[in-house]
Amino acid sequence: MPLFYLADLFGVAVFAITGALMAGRKSMDLFGVLVMAIVTALGGGTLRDLILDNHPLSWIRDDTYILVASLAALCTVIWVRMTRPIHEKGLLIADAFGLAVFTVSGTELALQQGTPLSTAVIMGVMTGVVGGVIRDILCNEIPLIFQKEIYATACIAGALTLISLRLLEVPQWLGTSLAMLVVLGARLAAIHWHLGLPRFHLLDRHRE
Amino acid sequence: MPLFYLADLFGVAVFAITGALMAGRKSMDLFGVLVMAIVTALGGGTLRDLILDNHPLSWIRDDTYILVASLAALCTVIWVRMTRPIHEKGLLIADAFGLAVFTVSGTELALQQGTPLSTAVIMGVMTGVVGGVIRDILCNEIPLIFQKEIYATACIAGALTLISLRLLEVPQWLGTSLAMLVVLGARLAAIHWHLGLPRFHLLDRHRE
Amino acid sequence: MPLFYLADLFGVAVFAITGALMAGRKSMDLFGVLVMAIVTALGGGTLRDLILDNHPLSWIRDDTYILVASLAALCTVIWVRMTRPIHEKGLLIADAFGLAVFTVSGTELALQQGTPLSTAVIMGVMTGVVGGVIRDILCNEIPLIFQKEIYATACIAGALTLISLRLLEVPQWLGTSLAMLVVLGARLAAIHWHLGLPRFHLLDRHRE
Repeated sequence: MPLFYLADLFGVAVFAITGALMAGRKSMDLFGVLVMAIVTALGGGTLRDLILDNHPLSWIRDDTYILVASLAALCTVIWVRMTRPIHEKGLLIADAFGLAVFTVSGTELALQQGTPLSTAVIMGVMTGVVGGVIRDILCNEIPLIFQKEIYATACIAGALTLISLRLLEVPQWLGTSLAMLVVLGARLAAIHWHLGLPRFHLLDRHRE
Repeated sequence: MPLFYLADLFGVAVFAITGALMAGRKSMDLFGVLVMAIVTALGGGTLRDLILDNHPLSWIRDDTYILVASLAALCTVIWVRMTRPIHEKGLLIADAFGLAVFTVSGTELALQQGTPLSTAVIMGVMTGVVGGVIRDILCNEIPLIFQKEIYATACIAGALTLISLRLLEVPQWLGTSLAMLVVLGARLAAIHWHLGLPRFHLLDRHRE
Repeated sequence: MPLFYLADLFGVAVFAITGALMAGRKSMDLFGVLVMAIVTALGGGTLRDLILDNHPLSWIRDDTYILVASLAALCTVIWVRMTRPIHEKGLLIADAFGLAVFTVSGTELALQQGTPLSTAVIMGVMTGVVGGVIRDILCNEIPLIFQKEIYATACIAGALTLISLRLLEVPQWLGTSLAMLVVLGARLAAIHWHLGLPRFHLLDRHRE
């Protein structure tokens, strides 16, 4: 599945870029930037593979993942140094692309291993979300998943789209692409128009 | 062991409730609440099973876990919307129940796999504590384990109780119940009377 | 490899000390100190073994690890109570020793399992860094890896030294020792003279 592999590497690259940008915002040195890029890019997939007991992990079996993440980090540093600072929005948009690719690849992989459908949805959300959550926690930022805009919802919608299209026997390349578009579209729309779902307010007036 | 299974599901439900309540305090949307509930409910058991190499994980083998966690989250949202806000204490008490069940089930499972006793204690503490720690860190709260009241101590006491009663060949149902009561009793007493152990103060006057 | 085993236990002990000191700074009780010491001491190796699928984990196979971590924590508490508070620098220096031992043992172990060289470097950095990162995140401190001084860089340098000397067929004890000295020397120099690499500043003036 070379297309799938390329999509996965694309997800690694964009998440590595978000890790490098966040490291830059925290004024880390070059090796710190590298570490952050790799952790962000490979964190979600690593947790997914540990939970599904897929050994050896993809990035241990295949050097390319680490190479791509490192190169993406270096290019980010050079690019930012040569041009002007990146907007907050640049980080958000790169994150949205990574989220779309990883959510779908995580769901897909779980389905191929014959897990229950509910597990496949969770593996999709986990693969998409975890790298970014680790990045944000390490940098002491509020994870994007907690911001006002639609986030986890976009992943769940994407995973459900993939599963539904699979059940309808839509060709794989089409189902995968449409599911990615659902995640990406939901996130980009949420970023652009500040869309959010109704929220669960639990006022805590009685807090001791 | 159907009783044990039911206790485990009960632990999943109460931890899911604490996750949903915490998500509500952070004003997350519905799907965010769902994610927090599932992570809190399944985090501890997942880490335990990864460390003990128990594959497939319980919630992958058996859909019921995720179903119970999701339902508990939904009921929490509905219940809180229909009635008045929940006291801080409600969250603490639900957490105490989950802690009791998971500490004992984690210790039990490690014993059944023939790990050394010290490992069984650690697996018990880990199973009980980790879900709540992830919940609190994701929500940028100080983990309960760091608050003034007895917490880790309750888990260690419960795990040691279970192991002692096992060595004394007390019937399993009795040993399990007593160990849970130890954890629950210690936590509820600590919450009610603000009990704490003497603390290890390391004044840091010489901090550079 | 008894020397290697002893070095590993030494790393466990010094990281347990750093965990206990950090717990003391947060005024945790005795069992909390124990938990922090064990998590800090065994966190990095646990993640390494999970990722490399080395089961059973070293501390499950062998009680000694937990025993050493617990004893180190207790001795720290007693020592600090009997004498005056420890300087911030004490924690940093203990951390540097643990970092040196664990970085090299992680790299070594990955090499022995025949992983690609890039993976071996990452496993080394991960084994060295993760315990301390968990410690700092649990205590809501900025992880040392983010401070101004050289940190991740020291680990990467140590792992590369070990690999280079292995390729040059230098005897194992010599290569291991030199690689540890590289990490330790880099960190101690960084602490003493506040050395840092040029940093990647990403000014975020356009932040929305």
